[in-house]
Amino acid sequence: MRKGETTKLAILDEASEIASAVGLHGLTIGTLAAKTELSKSGLFAHFQSKESLQIEVLRHARNRFVDVVIRPALATPRGEPRVRELFEGWLGWFRGDILSGGCLFTAAAAELDDQPGPVREFLVSDERDLTDTVVQIFRTGISEGHFRQEADPYQFAQDVLGVLLAYTHTYRLLKDPGAEDRARRAFEALLTAAR
Amino acid sequence: MRKGETTKLAILDEASEIASAVGLHGLTIGTLAAKTELSKSGLFAHFQSKESLQIEVLRHARNRFVDVVIRPALATPRGEPRVRELFEGWLGWFRGDILSGGCLFTAAAAELDDQPGPVREFLVSDERDLTDTVVQIFRTGISEGHFRQEADPYQFAQDVLGVLLAYTHTYRLLKDPGAEDRARRAFEALLTAAR
Repeated sequence: MRKGETTKLAILDEASEIASAVGLHGLTIGTLAAKTELSKSGLFAHFQSKESLQIEVLRHARNRFVDVVIRPALATPRGEPRVRELFEGWLGWFRGDILSGGCLFTAAAAELDDQPGPVREFLVSDERDLTDTVVQIFRTGISEGHFRQEADPYQFAQDVLGVLLAYTHTYRLLKDPGAEDRARRAFEALLTAAR
Repeated sequence: MRKGETTKLAILDEASEIASAVGLHGLTIGTLAAKTELSKSGLFAHFQSKESLQIEVLRHARNRFVDVVIRPALATPRGEPRVRELFEGWLGWFRGDILSGGCLFTAAAAELDDQPGPVREFLVSDERDLTDTVVQIFRTGISEGHFRQEADPYQFAQDVLGVLLAYTHTYRLLKDPGAEDRARRAFEALLTAAR
């Protein structure tokens, strides 16, 4: 990897961390310059605009998400074990194991849901890909005979997202220590219903 | 009501609408002045700071939420009918029936979860009150014999919030027309588990 690319990845790591805490709108060339101790003009050489910075941060965070959540799930035996691995990794992502501010995509979704433009389009396309991946992983449970033939993978994808979103609200905002146990019980109830 | 109070309520209606679309951070005295055609100095007479404006908007939106979601539920017979009425009203709130940008509190939660200060404290206290209300409404279902004695009201409160958060993600961000049907099915599954 060339030195320029290494530097850029280090900047994007820092930028993802900032955005996970304060949202995409709070991520500016200025705050990033202060954190990375790089000059604003140096940062402008990497990112031509705030919008391109936001898109690159979303792409970078998604790459990390794929590495720490999706790949380990796909490396696990098909069916229920794979669905469980997906849930565990995803829960850790929401808990803040990777980016300390928790799920950057959730913060970005709340910011962007009524704001048309290329950043929203990028996020939506990415989140649709994620739904497809969850659906595909769930389907391995049907074809392996772990889940019922008529179980609806799109219902499962929406339901499991709900478990994680309610977890992050209850844990990160309300600081309720029971949030994670409740999320696990809700996930077990989804599996029971699917079997 | 004095004229000053009527004016202030009209301003808060507009401010809640703006914040539901662009988040609390997007609500400034400047954007509010443009929308209401009032002068910035006139607005400063009502709200001394951006922070006090944000808190008053959250309080105003919560009053509307209580009027359109909580009161109709409490006016419905105790037990499962009351829980259903709560869900229907809350779903409408998320759908954007009241504020066109959807749930202002969800947007604010994503913005504020890592940002300590009086606005976050206000939101957290308010959301804890909401959890208590959901728990209390669910408990009427236990005492009326509609739900099992050992059903956990806090589990239900977190689960039903998840159903609504996943609905808003899938409907408002991804524009998936199946989101509402799935939310209803998920809610029915929660009731079935509670019975």
